[in-house]
Amino acid sequence: MRVIDEAALEDIALGAAVLGTGGGGDPYIGKLMARESIRRYGPVDLYTLDELDDEDLIVPTAMMGAPTVMVEKMPNGDDIVNAFLSVGKYIGKTVRATMSIEAGGLNSVVPIYAAARLRLPMVDCDGMGRAFPELQMVTHTIHGISATPIAMSDERGNTVIMETINNHWTETFARSVTVDMGAMAMIALYAATVAELKEAAVPDTITQAQRIGETIRRARLEEQDPVRTVRESVNGYTVFRGKISDVQRRTEAGFAKGDAFMTGIADYEGRKLQLSFQNEHLAARIDGEVCVTVPDLIAVLDIETGEPITTEGLRYGFRVEVIAFPCTPRWRSEAGLQLVGPRVFGYDVEYVPVEERYGQ
Amino acid sequence: MRVIDEAALEDIALGAAVLGTGGGGDPYIGKLMARESIRRYGPVDLYTLDELDDEDLIVPTAMMGAPTVMVEKMPNGDDIVNAFLSVGKYIGKTVRATMSIEAGGLNSVVPIYAAARLRLPMVDCDGMGRAFPELQMVTHTIHGISATPIAMSDERGNTVIMETINNHWTETFARSVTVDMGAMAMIALYAATVAELKEAAVPDTITQAQRIGETIRRARLEEQDPVRTVRESVNGYTVFRGKISDVQRRTEAGFAKGDAFMTGIADYEGRKLQLSFQNEHLAARIDGEVCVTVPDLIAVLDIETGEPITTEGLRYGFRVEVIAFPCTPRWRSEAGLQLVGPRVFGYDVEYVPVEERYGQ
Repeated sequence: MRVIDEAALEDIALGAAVLGTGGGGDPYIGKLMARESIRRYGPVDLYTLDELDDEDLIVPTAMMGAPTVMVEKMPNGDDIVNAFLSVGKYIGKTVRATMSIEAGGLNSVVPIYAAARLRLPMVDCDGMGRAFPELQMVTHTIHGISATPIAMSDERGNTVIMETINNHWTETFARSVTVDMGAMAMIALYAATVAELKEAAVPDTITQAQRIGETIRRARLEEQDPVRTVRESVNGYTVFRGKISDVQRRTEAGFAKGDAFMTGIADYEGRKLQLSFQNEHLAARIDGEVCVTVPDLIAVLDIETGEPITTEGLRYGFRVEVIAFPCTPRWRSEAGLQLVGPRVFGYDVEYVPVEERYGQ
Repeated sequence: MRVIDEAALEDIALGAAVLGTGGGGDPYIGKLMARESIRRYGPVDLYTLDELDDEDLIVPTAMMGAPTVMVEKMPNGDDIVNAFLSVGKYIGKTVRATMSIEAGGLNSVVPIYAAARLRLPMVDCDGMGRAFPELQMVTHTIHGISATPIAMSDERGNTVIMETINNHWTETFARSVTVDMGAMAMIALYAATVAELKEAAVPDTITQAQRIGETIRRARLEEQDPVRTVRESVNGYTVFRGKISDVQRRTEAGFAKGDAFMTGIADYEGRKLQLSFQNEHLAARIDGEVCVTVPDLIAVLDIETGEPITTEGLRYGFRVEVIAFPCTPRWRSEAGLQLVGPRVFGYDVEYVPVEERYGQ
């Protein structure tokens, strides 16, 4: 066991922005909430799965909705507490700890906020090893763990609990309720025992986010090339360097969808990249040809600062490096690719692991 | 206590079609389900509120959705059982009986089906004394009884439970989930004690429906004027006689909305009536002037048979008599009119009780 204090939180949020692959919500607001919560209630105990009993029940906490809304409407925190407690009450068992359902973006730090307020520990694992736009897109689904009972709460005091026949139906109902709740809901779901999580979850992802954050922070202090530092901290590859020439956005059924277009600079002069996103970056095409797709991770880094840019932060004129890096091996199974492979998002291409395209 | 057997069911369904004021769903399909259920499990015990203990917990059962869908997609019955049992389990108390939340249309007989299958009694009261299109439009709301916990189930096995801050929010969330469930969901909600229902519910409405049904049935046997018989059985008034010249429909957010237009015959020659509906008939205008509105009841009767015509059954060329009759006094309070008065449905007119316009 180790603790997440304010300093650790800073690094986790920084690293989570990279693992968010442009989405998962800007961790900034979540970080402010979690910091306030740590200051008030003390640091959060972080356990590895091995340090807990196999029978211990874990209930992840998260925000559901369009990240663009988060910026305008800050959660009040009671909602996430309501959601968490409602699941425990509904199941009728003691919940030992919470965890992240996605290690990327806002949802890496939302459970830190919840854990501090609830005075419960947090487990060092998640269900994605990154961020994904839909609720069923977690490694839990591959292992037959149900998203339900899910509890969804809003800042007014409404709570919705669902029992569904599969995790796709949970996504369908929960998305509608999220829209009704103002395009944002706080949720608790995917209750599972530690024994189940040892099979199903992606381990050590909070530590991974923290390590990435530390590396970036140190590189800044030591004035190293920030983009290279980020890329190396995730074992990533350069996909493109360019200037953003256009961004097309649409908010569709609670999702922030769109495409960013870039024209190459330096080694990429004369080439064009199209980056498609649905909350997260999904696929990149150079001159029309697919060069990287989900489930591998794509990050867009500010070329001067190395700062990862969220999909909602993409703006005309930004000079960026697009990097890609490997997803957890759990996503590369047949079942994993059926859940989050390129075809799920409408790209009729075979998934090719990023290191096969770019590695030696 | 008395029992609802097959014969009673027939009369209740017939009377409920009149109280449905064009909506509440065609009782026909619900009647078939309830009849099957009575044949299999035996007749249903019907209690008055006075025959039960004040502490007894009652959970109404109903169908939510667009009546037009019911005709194509018959509920399998497991859904209503799931919804009912989920509320009881969630509350953690024994439920004594079920009841109708609306006495008009399909939802007068859905609880008979549920009661037979669950081998539980039913209570002789409801929350409307008629049918209304939205979930918060029940006398329970006036008396501060919460619609939640509500459970909603579909025929696939999905169940959604909600705790909301008021009954309008329940309507909002439940409407979205109903659309996701295929525009139809079976629901259990408005759990209340007998003591609360003595204050809040409309009493004896199943008996009222049955009495109307009996009257119509006898009049048919005795070859009396069927329209006059129906009108007299509800203490109603003739508003118009005419031929349907046009029906405009739209399905909007799970509702069957529209207007029917009629040209007068006999005493009404040369005049025109416009009848507006949202699942139920809401208001009638003769030559542009409002002549009857919610919460009073409007029924459209086939001039030959006296059969009430549902909003989805309205067709060009039908010769009909439009009748109106008084709602329960509970709706005529200020709080009642704020919930179901004409202004709620967009008609900027004062409510005038039907007997003031048409009575002696």
